[in-house]
Amino acid sequence: MIEFELTKEFRDRFQQALDDRDEFFIRKSLENVKAADIASLLYEFTSAEAYYVMVLFPLELQSEIINDLDPDVRKQYLKHFPPATIATFLNQLASDDTADILHELPIKEREEVLLSLDTELRIQVTELLRYEPNVAGGLMAKELIKARIDWTVVQCIEEIRKQAESVSRFYQVFVVDEHDKLLGKVTLQNLIISEARKKVADIYEEDIVSVQTYDEDVHVVEIMKKYDLESLPVINVHGQLVGRITIDDIVDVITEQAEEERQIMAGISEDVEEDDSIWRNTRARLPWLLIGILGGLMNAKFMGLFEGELARITAIAFFTPLIQATGGNVGIQSSSLIVQSLANPDFVDEGVWKRLVKVFFVAILNGLFLSLIVLGANILLFDEYTLSTVVSIALFSVVVFASFIGTLTPLILNRFGFNPALAAGPFITTTNDLLGLTIYFFTVHLML
Amino acid sequence: MIEFELTKEFRDRFQQALDDRDEFFIRKSLENVKAADIASLLYEFTSAEAYYVMVLFPLELQSEIINDLDPDVRKQYLKHFPPATIATFLNQLASDDTADILHELPIKEREEVLLSLDTELRIQVTELLRYEPNVAGGLMAKELIKARIDWTVVQCIEEIRKQAESVSRFYQVFVVDEHDKLLGKVTLQNLIISEARKKVADIYEEDIVSVQTYDEDVHVVEIMKKYDLESLPVINVHGQLVGRITIDDIVDVITEQAEEERQIMAGISEDVEEDDSIWRNTRARLPWLLIGILGGLMNAKFMGLFEGELARITAIAFFTPLIQATGGNVGIQSSSLIVQSLANPDFVDEGVWKRLVKVFFVAILNGLFLSLIVLGANILLFDEYTLSTVVSIALFSVVVFASFIGTLTPLILNRFGFNPALAAGPFITTTNDLLGLTIYFFTVHLML
Repeated sequence: MIEFELTKEFRDRFQQALDDRDEFFIRKSLENVKAADIASLLYEFTSAEAYYVMVLFPLELQSEIINDLDPDVRKQYLKHFPPATIATFLNQLASDDTADILHELPIKEREEVLLSLDTELRIQVTELLRYEPNVAGGLMAKELIKARIDWTVVQCIEEIRKQAESVSRFYQVFVVDEHDKLLGKVTLQNLIISEARKKVADIYEEDIVSVQTYDEDVHVVEIMKKYDLESLPVINVHGQLVGRITIDDIVDVITEQAEEERQIMAGISEDVEEDDSIWRNTRARLPWLLIGILGGLMNAKFMGLFEGELARITAIAFFTPLIQATGGNVGIQSSSLIVQSLANPDFVDEGVWKRLVKVFFVAILNGLFLSLIVLGANILLFDEYTLSTVVSIALFSVVVFASFIGTLTPLILNRFGFNPALAAGPFITTTNDLLGLTIYFFTVHLML
Repeated sequence: MIEFELTKEFRDRFQQALDDRDEFFIRKSLENVKAADIASLLYEFTSAEAYYVMVLFPLELQSEIINDLDPDVRKQYLKHFPPATIATFLNQLASDDTADILHELPIKEREEVLLSLDTELRIQVTELLRYEPNVAGGLMAKELIKARIDWTVVQCIEEIRKQAESVSRFYQVFVVDEHDKLLGKVTLQNLIISEARKKVADIYEEDIVSVQTYDEDVHVVEIMKKYDLESLPVINVHGQLVGRITIDDIVDVITEQAEEERQIMAGISEDVEEDDSIWRNTRARLPWLLIGILGGLMNAKFMGLFEGELARITAIAFFTPLIQATGGNVGIQSSSLIVQSLANPDFVDEGVWKRLVKVFFVAILNGLFLSLIVLGANILLFDEYTLSTVVSIALFSVVVFASFIGTLTPLILNRFGFNPALAAGPFITTTNDLLGLTIYFFTVHLML
């Protein structure tokens, strides 16, 4: 294996070579380096510099690198080329990758590139462009090997020979009838070890899992993970084989979903990375910070209503951070457990009520434990009995209420088609801050 | 495809059949249902009931179901069997799955089961058990197809025929020299389309990516994702081929990492699911809640130092929630961006200083924007100029400081070998609550 490690030293040396237009060094240093590594190297330079490097490579490698680039870098980069040249790159790629890249282009350019594609690829891609990127149809590739059930093993191998050039990776041959209806599969190893005269009908496995073009990506991920598949056929409403999804696409979907969820939980509202511009980083953070600020102002206004009480017993104010932080923590915990089980729905859903009953008991246990500890600590630290009791009663109630809100919010968001992970971020913290304050001051008002 | 959907109705009907010992219904209803689906069904019942169902199936299906079970359910379930029977199950499985299951058994039982395994599997598994589960050696399976470089295509296919039974899925033939040193690969499609008389040396690809047995799982994930591999050979320090990792194992690793990270961010300290027991749910939540409580008590004690100021101007207390919530939100945002870029280290790391400079500018922009908005809102809402100015100055400082702490904490945790995601959860919120309060009251003390 050619190990390529992107170091600061190499980057700086490469920058030097770019400044000097040192074509020899550039060619030499990138010899035998893989497309994915060249793509990460090119991120370090301007798109004009990347252009200078790229045109030194053969067309096939250029296409591979373009395919490996990040969508936003690729968009900038492709601006250097006319539609006809972009089409020559895409002609080297698989139909699903081509469709993804076309999706990123402005609509006018997309049409122009599409017209310049090789006929077969154009037909395939035109079909793929009809699907949303987040359904099976948008994930699938058209390249696949299929065999008719009445063929012999020899015919089958002949077909693979014909198609092997256009299909970059295949794991099995899909078996169809004369109307292209999916019937089953023959694995490659089965094909290799079968006698040439045998019929496909004799060696194929009927037992095959498939998805419909309109099935959502999360469903596709679930199926492929559950049944441990490396390749999944996609059928249309007539049961006809129209494409296949491979496991590497699913790895990308899983990674993207996890990243999206983390950003939502962290209150970041755009797909942003640390190395994006300062302005973009700022913009991605502001919306949720503003919502937090709005919550904070409401907190202030609300506390203002109790100014009399606060003036009378200043110590009331000491415990708002404790109450609010606990409410926030409990809320995030509860909602994140619900988000997790919504993502793995592989059990009988007992319904909202059973969930709430369970949440109630967990909350009671946690609440009792925490409020007793706080009661003891407060009496030790502040030597004050009444206020300490009030704080513990409020704390207990906040734990219970925050658990309910943390449980219900993701369920409600999910029901109305929003991402339930929204409930595991600043949204729930802001809500629970207000809730905590209300409960606390209400208790204070009643008891002091 | 046999669609199996686990509904409440079916679960209840199945429970009925279990109570009645209705073997006919059980057999009939699970005919053609896949192992993974049976495994999810069995989660709904006790392990004694699961036992009753399982023994109705042929050995091979039983083994598959056991392999598909969740580790903690499996542990309970396997208690029903003596070591020799467990060995008969494991004899049906691949070496990596067998090693994983053996890892879960108590050490004495593990040794007994190991002794009862088929010789070949025992030798393979004994080697695998030496590795930690989170390195390449712990992820790999011993089953693979390899061919000597001096073989012909026919010999190669002959070897596949021999090995095809024990290797459940293969994508390529690894090419080695006479000392088992990894030289390259032949893809299956290449093999199928090559003439029988050709030598492996003529058709193999030298360009092959491999990892060492001691490489960490995150590194393996990175390599397989980056180069889009479905199968990755593992070599020892002498460059000899010792195993291979397949993409389905990597999918599991990615999913587990994402789940672990979410739990850390949500402040849940054990691998727990919503449907685990009430007690386990409570226990998983308590540690971080207690740390939050400790922070809250420190907040209270700290505020007590400013009792004089609070008694003089009660309104000071109104704005602690605003200051603290913003500090918490900014801290989580910053740390989560760092966690994300630590997970995708595919660029030149500019070092801590460049990072901090950038964070500084983003913080200044966010801080200015937010504190101006709050200034305007406070003047409108409370008609108070001095306190409003104090709040905005404190808010600005909190945004800047929380950004630094949010950036540095994950970097420091990472440096010392802890999971940096720890810094994107309750830890950073608790720290920033205290920080926010300190800055706020310090400003109040100076200016009012």
